[in-house]
Amino acid sequence: MIEFETPSRRALLTAIGKAGGTLALYQAMTALGHAAPTQFSGPPKLAGAKPGASVIILGSGLAGMAAAYEMSKAGYKVTILEYQDRPGGRNYSVRGGDVIKETSGTVQHVRFAPGNYLNPGPWRIPYHHQALLHYCQEFGVALEPFVQINHAGYIHSADAYGGKPQRFAEVSTDFKGHVAELLAKAVNKNALDDTITKEDKDKLLEAMRGWGVLDKNMAYTSNLRTSAQRGFDRPPGGGVNGAPTPSEVAGLTDVLDPRVWQTLGLYLNTTMQTTMFQPVGGIDMIGKAFAKKLAGKIRLNSKVTKIAQDDASVTVDYEDVVTGKKAQAKADFCVCTIPLPILSQIEVQVSNAKQAAINSLPYQSSCKIGLEMKRRFWEQDEQIYGGHSFTTQSISQLSYPSTGFFKPGPAVVLGAYAGGAAAYQFAGMTPEERIETALNQGSVFHKQYREEFSNGVAVAWSRLPWITACASSWTDDLRKTHYQDLVSVDGRVVLAGEHCSYIGAWMEAALLSSIDAISRLHQRAVAA
Amino acid sequence: MIEFETPSRRALLTAIGKAGGTLALYQAMTALGHAAPTQFSGPPKLAGAKPGASVIILGSGLAGMAAAYEMSKAGYKVTILEYQDRPGGRNYSVRGGDVIKETSGTVQHVRFAPGNYLNPGPWRIPYHHQALLHYCQEFGVALEPFVQINHAGYIHSADAYGGKPQRFAEVSTDFKGHVAELLAKAVNKNALDDTITKEDKDKLLEAMRGWGVLDKNMAYTSNLRTSAQRGFDRPPGGGVNGAPTPSEVAGLTDVLDPRVWQTLGLYLNTTMQTTMFQPVGGIDMIGKAFAKKLAGKIRLNSKVTKIAQDDASVTVDYEDVVTGKKAQAKADFCVCTIPLPILSQIEVQVSNAKQAAINSLPYQSSCKIGLEMKRRFWEQDEQIYGGHSFTTQSISQLSYPSTGFFKPGPAVVLGAYAGGAAAYQFAGMTPEERIETALNQGSVFHKQYREEFSNGVAVAWSRLPWITACASSWTDDLRKTHYQDLVSVDGRVVLAGEHCSYIGAWMEAALLSSIDAISRLHQRAVAA
Repeated sequence: MIEFETPSRRALLTAIGKAGGTLALYQAMTALGHAAPTQFSGPPKLAGAKPGASVIILGSGLAGMAAAYEMSKAGYKVTILEYQDRPGGRNYSVRGGDVIKETSGTVQHVRFAPGNYLNPGPWRIPYHHQALLHYCQEFGVALEPFVQINHAGYIHSADAYGGKPQRFAEVSTDFKGHVAELLAKAVNKNALDDTITKEDKDKLLEAMRGWGVLDKNMAYTSNLRTSAQRGFDRPPGGGVNGAPTPSEVAGLTDVLDPRVWQTLGLYLNTTMQTTMFQPVGGIDMIGKAFAKKLAGKIRLNSKVTKIAQDDASVTVDYEDVVTGKKAQAKADFCVCTIPLPILSQIEVQVSNAKQAAINSLPYQSSCKIGLEMKRRFWEQDEQIYGGHSFTTQSISQLSYPSTGFFKPGPAVVLGAYAGGAAAYQFAGMTPEERIETALNQGSVFHKQYREEFSNGVAVAWSRLPWITACASSWTDDLRKTHYQDLVSVDGRVVLAGEHCSYIGAWMEAALLSSIDAISRLHQRAVAA
Repeated sequence: MIEFETPSRRALLTAIGKAGGTLALYQAMTALGHAAPTQFSGPPKLAGAKPGASVIILGSGLAGMAAAYEMSKAGYKVTILEYQDRPGGRNYSVRGGDVIKETSGTVQHVRFAPGNYLNPGPWRIPYHHQALLHYCQEFGVALEPFVQINHAGYIHSADAYGGKPQRFAEVSTDFKGHVAELLAKAVNKNALDDTITKEDKDKLLEAMRGWGVLDKNMAYTSNLRTSAQRGFDRPPGGGVNGAPTPSEVAGLTDVLDPRVWQTLGLYLNTTMQTTMFQPVGGIDMIGKAFAKKLAGKIRLNSKVTKIAQDDASVTVDYEDVVTGKKAQAKADFCVCTIPLPILSQIEVQVSNAKQAAINSLPYQSSCKIGLEMKRRFWEQDEQIYGGHSFTTQSISQLSYPSTGFFKPGPAVVLGAYAGGAAAYQFAGMTPEERIETALNQGSVFHKQYREEFSNGVAVAWSRLPWITACASSWTDDLRKTHYQDLVSVDGRVVLAGEHCSYIGAWMEAALLSSIDAISRLHQRAVAA
């Protein structure tokens, strides 16, 4: 969960004015006062590149490939060095036949059935991530809705409902019912007469009655009206026995469990809101689409060991990780998108302030576990089509596929999406232990879990040698000290990636950072 | 909105016992105590039909076709008489080239571009409508998610926010923020100390703080944390100018507008919850799939004029509406799915009680208006992908297509979905006036509305000669007096359709009613 400190508008405008000049200030000012969903205003306009000007780009994640694509279009001669044997960076999917190697030497062989996949990193696209949606359209990446909110999904807390999972519809109806009843009670005791007007008081009572589905005594009780939201014991049907019977509402104490209200609020975070999308066939369809546009420009298996610059050019030392052969690449400019846990281990010729920024930013980890089940029992037995179930256990959530609904045969659930300390707990286990833990914990939702399990894969980001972490983890204090130093153009070098943004671990962050970085580098190049 | 009165469980079980016998009672009892999402438990098992037994089915909507399909599979000789020149009943879509005729003689020619359609009747499938989903799978009807909840959709009330539409994310965040602040204030004044325990009091305050996104003073204020839910003035971005700026929260009075909390609560009604689906290509893919299984069994253009029965058979008089030729059909049994506004005008040989039920049930109307726009400006300019906007105006809502996202070219929005009195107001206008009204009112959301409008179609259900209404409209009192009489097997005749259910205007109602009706008719036939 991202927590922000509120800067004053004036302080912000001053900061923007300093950093970006008059045009940026003007653009920012006109934007204020309008609730704009995105900072994206179209691909960068990089007019007037000097003939023959060259750029070396380090890393072929979305930031690096977007930089390469746009600078190439603008006339720059572009080369990308990529450490891995595939382009895409964190934008990747794993499928049957893939091999996952960890820093410890542990190897996993993915055994999913053809067509099935796990997205270990990014997996969903909020509607306001317009830069990403722009490139998906430009490259013809087919998108399908990602089912984010599913009222049939479960919420489980070890401390509520006797540990028994509840449907999302049940807890959200009960939570608002109790809140409405309590607030109405306080209002009717005149406890808020010093706060609200007489007119608002009447409107508020009416709102609590309607929104909370209170009865004529302004109480939240078990009846067919509350059941029409939380679900019935016997739902309405047809014919002779069509009459419904109500379900029992839960008491106040259970609905006050933090896992309940945290989940209710979760879906209102802008990055969690609907409508969401995902690429048909796996998130790596995006990275692959970028890579297709950059054919011949990406050098794989290239481990960068040094980045140097002088008045005339940038020189990058690298090593072919397959042959061990060392080489140098030279260019007029450099866009470096290497994640900081790796970059901080490389000799880079930049200012002390930028080096301090590179060294100072902590990263968070994550562990995602994909479990292939023999059949879609969550659909067939429990009428759950996509969406999530949440738990207080370390797997944190269980997500159901948003594609291939109703199909027979095996399908992959996301059996764990652990962050924080839990991500490192999972990383400390063998892949088999991680999967065993996910099966154990997930069984709290689905009694079919073990019987239907076929095979699994567990990706612990802190163990992946090409990044050793998941994503940047800024704090407000770190931002004040290091952010502008990290993103500034330093001689002929600029950094880009999700770590150079206020968005964090999202593909959109990589793209918006990249567009900003290359726009400034281009200005520098044209002015040089 | 369906309102239920709560019967006691005991009274209900008694009623079920009387109507359905021991087995039904047992099934109902075992179901109690479990929140089951559906009464559907698989297609009907109609074993042991007598060789040569015949059924005549009146009406080829989903109820009629499901009856024909299942009874045909069970060995009955089946014929359907259908008044219209197409099967499907209310399950239909209109496309370019289609002609819509009204009782007044008014004719509309649909001019949508190829591939575009309007579903004038049913259009979405809740996840728990398992009978319908069963037949979709059995017949291979491709389904895609219907985007029901879209946080980017608008809410407009003439009486709030100065009449300016707000995004759903804005009003839902503000509503819960103010509710949380007020309840926390009351709790901190000890106004609820007689109601809640000390422990719940602490949990409640923590819940209000977290769920309501209150600040350290337990107030709901403008800051980056509330903006992370309701939207920013300037959202977080990448690079130098990546810092976000907060938006201003709305005051209490505006969020108490009924249109706000009614919309927030709407999505929690079981029939409005996610996950929802729609058939790819139009809702009539379902009716067409049924009809394909009934090739040669449906006689179109057949207007039923009389239904008679004696100890041996049922005789149906009908007239070919094209040739005017009169004819009779005879069968052992009859399943009549003709909507009651039509059936009540036909001579039917049934008990006085059933005739009274047929004559007594009022129907509601509805008006849906499809507007074809030259481009998807709601997606391209406003980042709205599917879902709805709601208004206090008579169009009631505006719905965006849940298919063909991001595609260039024309697309159809649902520009009005009017019920109640508004449905009759629209019906009283010419189609051109209806569309003009929809354009006027819809412009409150979208300034591009008139400029991008291409053509439209307005379906006023009360004016459709084959039904003259939209769907049944039971009250609790009418249920007590007439429901069991309406659904009972009367000699050799049984009624089926959404009017014979507790669900009402949903395709699932037609199917569950039909399954129940033919199961009882089959028992009667086997016992005879």
